[in-house]
Amino acid sequence: MEEFDLIDRYFLPLCQPIQAGDLGIGDDGAVMTPPEGHQLVVVTDTLVSGVHFPIDTCAYDIAWKALAVNLSDLAAMGAKPGFYSMGLTIPESDPSWLKSFAGGFRALSRRFDLPLIGGDTTRGPLTVTVTAHGWVEKGTALLRSGANAGDWVCVTGPLGDGGLGLMFALDTLSAEQRSWFDQDQVECSLQALNAPIPQLKAGRVIRGFASSAIDISDGLMADLGHILESSSAKRKTALGAEVWLDALPLSAAMQRWIDKHSDWSLPLAAGDDYHLCFTVHPDAWAKLHKEARENGVELHRIGRITEATGKGEAVTVLDTEGGRAVEHQAQTGYRHF
Amino acid sequence: MEEFDLIDRYFLPLCQPIQAGDLGIGDDGAVMTPPEGHQLVVVTDTLVSGVHFPIDTCAYDIAWKALAVNLSDLAAMGAKPGFYSMGLTIPESDPSWLKSFAGGFRALSRRFDLPLIGGDTTRGPLTVTVTAHGWVEKGTALLRSGANAGDWVCVTGPLGDGGLGLMFALDTLSAEQRSWFDQDQVECSLQALNAPIPQLKAGRVIRGFASSAIDISDGLMADLGHILESSSAKRKTALGAEVWLDALPLSAAMQRWIDKHSDWSLPLAAGDDYHLCFTVHPDAWAKLHKEARENGVELHRIGRITEATGKGEAVTVLDTEGGRAVEHQAQTGYRHF
Repeated sequence: MEEFDLIDRYFLPLCQPIQAGDLGIGDDGAVMTPPEGHQLVVVTDTLVSGVHFPIDTCAYDIAWKALAVNLSDLAAMGAKPGFYSMGLTIPESDPSWLKSFAGGFRALSRRFDLPLIGGDTTRGPLTVTVTAHGWVEKGTALLRSGANAGDWVCVTGPLGDGGLGLMFALDTLSAEQRSWFDQDQVECSLQALNAPIPQLKAGRVIRGFASSAIDISDGLMADLGHILESSSAKRKTALGAEVWLDALPLSAAMQRWIDKHSDWSLPLAAGDDYHLCFTVHPDAWAKLHKEARENGVELHRIGRITEATGKGEAVTVLDTEGGRAVEHQAQTGYRHF
Repeated sequence: MEEFDLIDRYFLPLCQPIQAGDLGIGDDGAVMTPPEGHQLVVVTDTLVSGVHFPIDTCAYDIAWKALAVNLSDLAAMGAKPGFYSMGLTIPESDPSWLKSFAGGFRALSRRFDLPLIGGDTTRGPLTVTVTAHGWVEKGTALLRSGANAGDWVCVTGPLGDGGLGLMFALDTLSAEQRSWFDQDQVECSLQALNAPIPQLKAGRVIRGFASSAIDISDGLMADLGHILESSSAKRKTALGAEVWLDALPLSAAMQRWIDKHSDWSLPLAAGDDYHLCFTVHPDAWAKLHKEARENGVELHRIGRITEATGKGEAVTVLDTEGGRAVEHQAQTGYRHF
């Protein structure tokens, strides 16, 4: 099957809904009309086989995740989802693989009414770059740079499951460790790894309340670190943060891991969580909490922004035993180089 | 050097100019304000090492070309350049390679005042996906689907040089063939291959006159074929086209190749030309021609759109010997699969 046939067969059906006067797949470019009073938000993420997902990951999961990580970035900006394009490089044109891949895109994009508006499919090592576009009311995008000392630090859901899922996917647990979990917990962890749900609704709810936001892709410590770095630079004064271990939301599987293993590196630093981490002024908390409850959005206060200690911008983890500060080792998240 | 340092050092300086209230690199996404009364045009193209460029191509040329082919698509839509993002996958973090790569982006993006607004740099086989964004006055984007029988077929400059350049780059010519060309001709051909100039000014000039447009990336025959296909589908009546060999604009090197070799496949089908092919109603020609001359834009009439012959949508090539129709063999351009 040729390139153009492949595109027609598998990707053209994803190019819906497109509003009248706009143009999706089929020309040199797509043409989209901006909604009045909005700014365009553009995000892009690349997934490489063997780097961002195990090489035996199924095509459906690859597509879902490639789109999900981008929508997660839109969520962190407080944007409404608009549309997306993709650059797909595949070693060979395998119709059943492509059908499954398109299925992953379809399942997630239908959930958020998001058309695929263009792309380029080429031959080469398996790599997917998605560029997602959203819209945000002018001047209201959520940035990393607005945190202030005294703000609460919050997250939108349980942390660490993606990291645990990777251990199941790569089969790196010992037989004993594996026996700690029932099948349901294994499946939930793999689901968190392969098919994360971007927190677009949460992003819209916290917009207008949050002073800063980021999505947790590199791990809570690293991503909260990005908030501190950006906010400190903007304020020209160093900020720190404390994170309370006993406040971290954990799934049943992750709670089991902690109970057995006492290893907090998964929820703190493994990454691949795709929940939002944000800061909010204490005065705004009550109203935000009400909004969130009314919209079915989960929120957890897990720490607060502080003036920096002597060490500069740093996240201090306070453990459950009476507030003793523990030094956490794996702060920086995944390093590509 | 780490990913974030790399980005800061080589790519952050490319994030200019950004207008006040907009946001480029450094957050989860970029935020851009649409100019009033405009539609957004989005294009994306992926280049893979060893597929779209020889593996020994220098980083500067790879970056230039990755951006140029996208800007060429914006040109074909009649759009003003806006900004671009990239997904870059590289096998290792080599500072001198990255510096050269950023240099290629810088040189071309400065020419068109186009900021890099975001991206993702990951480890893996060398692949570059650029997504470029432009703006076009609402409802005026140039499409492939507007050609009518009787329209002239035009191009904005010489064809075939990219294909000839590839022969020099891959060293596939015999010693005798190589001797046909002087050093200047070799360099011009390599320049056409590695550093094509996107025809953004031409796209803006022909907008409002042209009935359809496309950029010539797959080769004149294939790309004119795309115009016929889209326009026939829109009109629900099959269109054809004739192309006059003696009207094709050729560089000195390409003229030499034809004189010696009588092989028209390079200008007709090799692709990698990145000139625009467009159609225009004969009544609009005089005014368009004047506009183009005043703006220093090259235009060449090379054929016309016809009612389809028995064969359906097809491009007929008429040779220089008294209008005899010749069947051209290599119509379909580059096939990825």
